[in-house]
Amino acid sequence: MRIPILKLGNCLLVSIQWELDDQTALEFQEDLLKKIYETNASGVVIDITSIDFIDSFIAKVLGDVVNMSKMLGAKVVITGIQPAVAITLIELGITMEGVMTALDLESGLEKLKQELGD
Amino acid sequence: MRIPILKLGNCLLVSIQWELDDQTALEFQEDLLKKIYETNASGVVIDITSIDFIDSFIAKVLGDVVNMSKMLGAKVVITGIQPAVAITLIELGITMEGVMTALDLESGLEKLKQELGD
Repeated sequence: MRIPILKLGNCLLVSIQWELDDQTALEFQEDLLKKIYETNASGVVIDITSIDFIDSFIAKVLGDVVNMSKMLGAKVVITGIQPAVAITLIELGITMEGVMTALDLESGLEKLKQELGD
Repeated sequence: MRIPILKLGNCLLVSIQWELDDQTALEFQEDLLKKIYETNASGVVIDITSIDFIDSFIAKVLGDVVNMSKMLGAKVVITGIQPAVAITLIELGITMEGVMTALDLESGLEKLKQELGD
């Protein structure tokens, strides 16, 4: 099952609502990049509120997605990072530097709109 | 796999991106009503752009969801009804009377906000 990607104006919304396995994460990466290209989206919000646990592979894929999206001209905001996920990320040495974050989907979208100057 | 339901302000967003089987449709009905209750949402947009085919059972479930949501105090807009789906619905005798519809997610959200007087 692939992760649904919603288009809202010039932004894409993704809400990951179950734990990602490696295969799904890679498919998601591919799907998102394809969708950015197809829709000419200038911003992406990835909401991971429902993720309680993250491993180094998934963290890497997420980080990669952000950088790849930048190359396609889309800014990415990751929202809803749970305390436990933040702890794991830092313990894994992943600081998500240069990645915009926000508490929830709504503030993520707002942040993105400010960044995009809408 | 359950259909993700996103919360955006006082609205819920659902994008159905694959054909619904009967079981998934019923689970979706249950999940959505639970989420409306939990989040106290006043509006719901259900985007069915990716659905090319609809049968009488799914159509009934969708119609029921709209009426049930109304009982919980949430207005529903269905967006992205494909021409083929509209044809099937009318041929099945389902006119979706009283259901707000819009072409895409964005105009659906706008319609909803107008209705809610935001």
